[in-house]
Amino acid sequence: MRKAKRQGRTAPTPEELQGLDAHWRAANYLAAGQIYLMSNPLLKEPLQPEHIKPRLLGHWGTSPGLNFVHTHLNRVVKARDLSALCIWGPGHGGPAVLANSWLEGSYSETYPDVSRDEAGMARLFRQFSFPGGVPSHVAPETPGSIHEGGELGYSLAHAYGAALDNPGLLVACVIGDGEAETGPLAASWHSNKFLDPVHDGAVLPILHLNGYKIANPTVLARLPAPELDELLRGYGHDPLHVEGDNPHSVHLAMAEAMDTALDRIAHIQDEARTSGVRGRPRWPVIVLRTPKGWTGPAEVDGEPVEGTWRSHQVPLAEVRENPEHLRQLEAWLRSYRPEELFGTDGRPVPEVLACVPDGTRRLGATPHANGGLLLRSLPIPPLEEYAVPVVKPGTSLHEPTRVLGGLLARIMADTADRRDFRVVGPDETASNRLDALYGSTDKVWQEAILPTDEHLATDGRVMEVLSEHLCQGWLEGYLLTGRHGFFSSYEAFVHIVDSMVNQHIKWLKTSRQLSWRAPVASLNYLLTSHVWRQDHNGFSHQDPGFVDHILNKSPEVVRVYLPPDANTLLSVADHVLRSRDYVNVVVAGKQPCFDWLSMADARAHCARGAGIWEWAGTDDGTREPDVVLGCAGDVPTMEVLAAAALLRAHLPDLAVRVVNVVDMTRLMPREAHPHGMTDPEYDALFTRDKPVIFAYHGYPWLIHRLAYRRTGHADMHVRGYKESGTTTTPFDMVVRNDLDRYRLVMDVIDRVPGLAVRAGSVRQAMADVRTRHHAWIREHGTDLPEVADWSWPY
Amino acid sequence: MRKAKRQGRTAPTPEELQGLDAHWRAANYLAAGQIYLMSNPLLKEPLQPEHIKPRLLGHWGTSPGLNFVHTHLNRVVKARDLSALCIWGPGHGGPAVLANSWLEGSYSETYPDVSRDEAGMARLFRQFSFPGGVPSHVAPETPGSIHEGGELGYSLAHAYGAALDNPGLLVACVIGDGEAETGPLAASWHSNKFLDPVHDGAVLPILHLNGYKIANPTVLARLPAPELDELLRGYGHDPLHVEGDNPHSVHLAMAEAMDTALDRIAHIQDEARTSGVRGRPRWPVIVLRTPKGWTGPAEVDGEPVEGTWRSHQVPLAEVRENPEHLRQLEAWLRSYRPEELFGTDGRPVPEVLACVPDGTRRLGATPHANGGLLLRSLPIPPLEEYAVPVVKPGTSLHEPTRVLGGLLARIMADTADRRDFRVVGPDETASNRLDALYGSTDKVWQEAILPTDEHLATDGRVMEVLSEHLCQGWLEGYLLTGRHGFFSSYEAFVHIVDSMVNQHIKWLKTSRQLSWRAPVASLNYLLTSHVWRQDHNGFSHQDPGFVDHILNKSPEVVRVYLPPDANTLLSVADHVLRSRDYVNVVVAGKQPCFDWLSMADARAHCARGAGIWEWAGTDDGTREPDVVLGCAGDVPTMEVLAAAALLRAHLPDLAVRVVNVVDMTRLMPREAHPHGMTDPEYDALFTRDKPVIFAYHGYPWLIHRLAYRRTGHADMHVRGYKESGTTTTPFDMVVRNDLDRYRLVMDVIDRVPGLAVRAGSVRQAMADVRTRHHAWIREHGTDLPEVADWSWPY
Repeated sequence: MRKAKRQGRTAPTPEELQGLDAHWRAANYLAAGQIYLMSNPLLKEPLQPEHIKPRLLGHWGTSPGLNFVHTHLNRVVKARDLSALCIWGPGHGGPAVLANSWLEGSYSETYPDVSRDEAGMARLFRQFSFPGGVPSHVAPETPGSIHEGGELGYSLAHAYGAALDNPGLLVACVIGDGEAETGPLAASWHSNKFLDPVHDGAVLPILHLNGYKIANPTVLARLPAPELDELLRGYGHDPLHVEGDNPHSVHLAMAEAMDTALDRIAHIQDEARTSGVRGRPRWPVIVLRTPKGWTGPAEVDGEPVEGTWRSHQVPLAEVRENPEHLRQLEAWLRSYRPEELFGTDGRPVPEVLACVPDGTRRLGATPHANGGLLLRSLPIPPLEEYAVPVVKPGTSLHEPTRVLGGLLARIMADTADRRDFRVVGPDETASNRLDALYGSTDKVWQEAILPTDEHLATDGRVMEVLSEHLCQGWLEGYLLTGRHGFFSSYEAFVHIVDSMVNQHIKWLKTSRQLSWRAPVASLNYLLTSHVWRQDHNGFSHQDPGFVDHILNKSPEVVRVYLPPDANTLLSVADHVLRSRDYVNVVVAGKQPCFDWLSMADARAHCARGAGIWEWAGTDDGTREPDVVLGCAGDVPTMEVLAAAALLRAHLPDLAVRVVNVVDMTRLMPREAHPHGMTDPEYDALFTRDKPVIFAYHGYPWLIHRLAYRRTGHADMHVRGYKESGTTTTPFDMVVRNDLDRYRLVMDVIDRVPGLAVRAGSVRQAMADVRTRHHAWIREHGTDLPEVADWSWPY
Repeated sequence: MRKAKRQGRTAPTPEELQGLDAHWRAANYLAAGQIYLMSNPLLKEPLQPEHIKPRLLGHWGTSPGLNFVHTHLNRVVKARDLSALCIWGPGHGGPAVLANSWLEGSYSETYPDVSRDEAGMARLFRQFSFPGGVPSHVAPETPGSIHEGGELGYSLAHAYGAALDNPGLLVACVIGDGEAETGPLAASWHSNKFLDPVHDGAVLPILHLNGYKIANPTVLARLPAPELDELLRGYGHDPLHVEGDNPHSVHLAMAEAMDTALDRIAHIQDEARTSGVRGRPRWPVIVLRTPKGWTGPAEVDGEPVEGTWRSHQVPLAEVRENPEHLRQLEAWLRSYRPEELFGTDGRPVPEVLACVPDGTRRLGATPHANGGLLLRSLPIPPLEEYAVPVVKPGTSLHEPTRVLGGLLARIMADTADRRDFRVVGPDETASNRLDALYGSTDKVWQEAILPTDEHLATDGRVMEVLSEHLCQGWLEGYLLTGRHGFFSSYEAFVHIVDSMVNQHIKWLKTSRQLSWRAPVASLNYLLTSHVWRQDHNGFSHQDPGFVDHILNKSPEVVRVYLPPDANTLLSVADHVLRSRDYVNVVVAGKQPCFDWLSMADARAHCARGAGIWEWAGTDDGTREPDVVLGCAGDVPTMEVLAAAALLRAHLPDLAVRVVNVVDMTRLMPREAHPHGMTDPEYDALFTRDKPVIFAYHGYPWLIHRLAYRRTGHADMHVRGYKESGTTTTPFDMVVRNDLDRYRLVMDVIDRVPGLAVRAGSVRQAMADVRTRHHAWIREHGTDLPEVADWSWPY
């Protein structure tokens, strides 16, 4: 029955066509109305300057095309009873998507004050791009959306992310021809090499060529037609073409193309699900060529507008001041014949709504666009099953990410049936020591699999592609539709997605303020292969600045953790995988690292986020220490602990306190971040007036930026990465950046009042080791024997 | 004669083939030797563990393929007397490019201590990936290179940038199949829509499919062959295929493919240059399929290695400890028959060098890879010809970027014959008000041009494409080959290239330390359409954090300027266009902005980088002021000046000093940045103990991070963007972020000791305006009349 319905293809009747056109005209009217009208929404009166908004803002150019696609999606969703979601790549055409949501009723259900009647239409118009109203783009405020269309580049990756592990879902994706010039979008076409027709839903790309960007023609729109077809076939698609500017014929062609595409998709899925996957299918793509600003003013002030870049934003710009513009606007709006589309009460007439599906089938009401509604908590096992035993700190070594791999593998296994957890990464899952995952699942791959290949399968849930953009885009789409995930990346190259994560954080920040949006799983980064251990690669792979980037963003969304060993990494991972609506950045090494804390201690330490490690210092707790050694990050923590041991050996009467920080935002003032310490809490760790030598994983000034308001800040001295990198040994990296244990001891001697005199020989001994280091590594190419095995003097 | 020579295609003779193979074997030997050998470079003794480096680092997998391409480029460069540059996309295969440079002699000319003999070979081997030696990737230290191959994604854009306006240059570009999965690379294929066969050189992409990334097969290598051809044809190329693992037949096929490609390129160029451009040509691309780690160990420890991902880095990992690995290594190295390739003195024998071109034709010696050698200063006219007249501050308005556009247009006109200046931008040149440029040149475009198009031409020097990655990559390639350029971008979206600019800064930082690298023109960003004026777009377009990102990087390279008006923008532009080896970030608005400084004052102010604006304050200069109002950025400067005027009107006895900062790095300590102020200089502006209210364009904590070491820092209070954005009015944006004039006056009253009591009514009046603002904009959708015209109360 269902199958028959999904393939139940019939050409639209004349009445149906008329209804589709009425729906489209209504949406176009509502889109233009939002850009222009403050009042008189139904044009019951002749249009006057005072009906016009004082500031005309928004993007008309793409809107009629989006409305056209929405109308035709409505038709097929209803006819085939599809579960569908649409990603509106040109989401800067906000008026279009808002218009359709209002027409189908989902808008008024979400925002009852914007009712589906004349008063509601007036509110819909007025609020658009208006202070205190709604943004001009598709945004979190827009029902049915998971995608902001302002930055451009990520629509298709989002669409694939949404389709993964949603076998019953159709994800349509409108790609503007401007967006199609971006790198991330160009790479996204190959996402079909990772889409499993059995376990995943379908993505239907609709490449909307309206020919122009803001001021220029677009590359794809100007390709000779056969070349564009070669390109799309080269991407693995079968193109279907719809083209024209005559609404009647374009409606017919679009209905046919939609039916053809959906029949093919149904056929591909049915085949794969009944007979098994036999090679990667060639999925359809629709190429829709219609004029930019279609149905808008053909000419303004003697210049062509419809069909050119001039219709990108507001085609008639001086409507309040220029009577001719006002006249043109009125003619334009009345060309949609609003009196046929809306009753005198402003409600859409039945013909307009004939194509609209019901309930959650409506594109503005699908729960997949409000993924938190569908979210289930991850089954996270007791961490103790994966923890490493720690009897005494610093007496055993583990690779923290490998330990984490065990936990992730278990979660992967325990979600085998649910299929709501994925790990993404740019070809680095094994390199980052997470390969235990391959005991639970494989890497997804729809191309040919050769005998020498390992861990590849069509239904794997690890996703590896050499594109951080795709990893990020897929994961965002996956999370926003109510699933869980984990992104492991080389630390330096996560900057590739700086701008993408900006947009995701902005999305989450706004979503958190909308009561109707249910919380989604956090976006979790594991940054490993970090700045201190780039033996094979060197300077180009050394950049710890993603943390700085993230901490500029909304504090209610961003979290940064630097677990110093395996068990703290487990505890942090447990926390971030349970969290909601955050972007969590976890920085942890993959190289062998001393175990400092038992699982119980690790849990307690991570819960505090920062704390004194009494066992590491010589501070007896009865008085303030002479100096505080702060540390954050695995390598800095080891250097601080080694420095503390050196101080104990050489200056046993010095009271040294060691403070480790796992949660970087604890350093911020309480009023600047919800995790921030109060001043008394901070002072209890770092004192108000004792020197603090802080060894930090990244750029040292970040610590100052977080802690500058603290009382003791003037006597805080931070060591960290200062862009002094190359291909060299691990210990040479810390020496080059003055973060090594010997330098830290010298810092203590230099900073503790009175110590320089009595500890001069100790200071000289430290300097001597550093001198010896310089000579040794140039001679031997290895670290000094006393540090080469990263030995820990406890 | 030259034409005949360029098309002088002859199949290689058996002797020539033997020479090519000898050259390739020599390069392979040298590449493997660099990864493994500490001594015994010519294997004159049986290999012993002590000959092996203690740490085995580097990438073997791609190296034999790079060596193969280099050998065949040598052949055609020599045969055709070509001027050629090669971009090595898989530049992590550093050993290959170093090997070739050493073979051809360019390495020893650059580094005489690494001579072309046995002693030099020993040094070449030992220094590789060794402390104090050379990086493991192609790097600035590598002769003949402008491209680091570590991050992956930018090779093809760099190649196109190098080819622009270099009509006599061939730019070969090796693209690894891993890199080909990235977004920037995927977008770069369409660069051929912007390459003018008359005025630009040729780009020959060589897609090297060795099948694997670090741990996975690659997408393009596994595409069915016809699909890959469709893809490449869809990109506008004609593919030529070379495939195999038998060296003899692959040599023959490669030689033929190279000849075919170069004949086609010569034909395309000759046609275009004699008969004019007739549509975009279909340029050749070579698809080279050879095994990963070709000629390396076939199997190690029972696992296949050659032809799989296992050969990515070091195929034999335990050579010092494992005798079987040692044996395999020796057999591998001897398989190249080094005794046939090098004399007993270590010099390459004549047969090996037979294919190597002479002098600057050698790929390691081309001046195009040391672009500073070719650089000419830009002809910059007197700024006074473009300056706006300023009789009194704040009495006229100009769009700063439009004023700048006049200057850029003149430079563009004055370089019409030289063709060494380009402006790039993601479809925003006109939107950013730089359209005066179109009086001097056009936007380059090789596709069809329609009657409605404007300012498009095949030979334009403005480059617009909706990809910040392409803009950045083209410009980097253009600058590093000795030309000038300017990148204008929306402020928020320049984060798209965060990671690219990281790599460029690292390149420049290292280059500055190499005496043989001549300085190149700086990479200049104009960030406009900034955070405070995003009327059409809102929150997604609001991010001022690129400055924070840049200021994490090497201080010897990065510069940040926030000119507050049109004339200061001219002065800054003049400075950055003359500068060398920097990355300059200039943030300036495109909206009408008050003119504050005459051209002479602007020059003086910009030369200081920060200074007191006596005319704006009430500080008579005879004593310290009661409060300092600091500002940086156009909108904050206006708000501070308005606040100063309000203070003068309401609290005339308060001594207010206004300090404007143009050069952000002036705030840094002198020891942290070469532009940093000394403490006395800083104190002379900001005082040591008076409250400073600082209005900053971006994230407020950046100011704290720059100034935290200053004496008066504890009483510094910064206002800036705190991620509170949406689609709203310009003034509402500053109110939402507490950067408005009224809030600043309140801050002064709150911070100046004793003022709160006597100025309570003034404070209340300010608060009242803000309350009125909130009500007004929700009602009217426009700013309060008193701020809507951005009126200036002087």
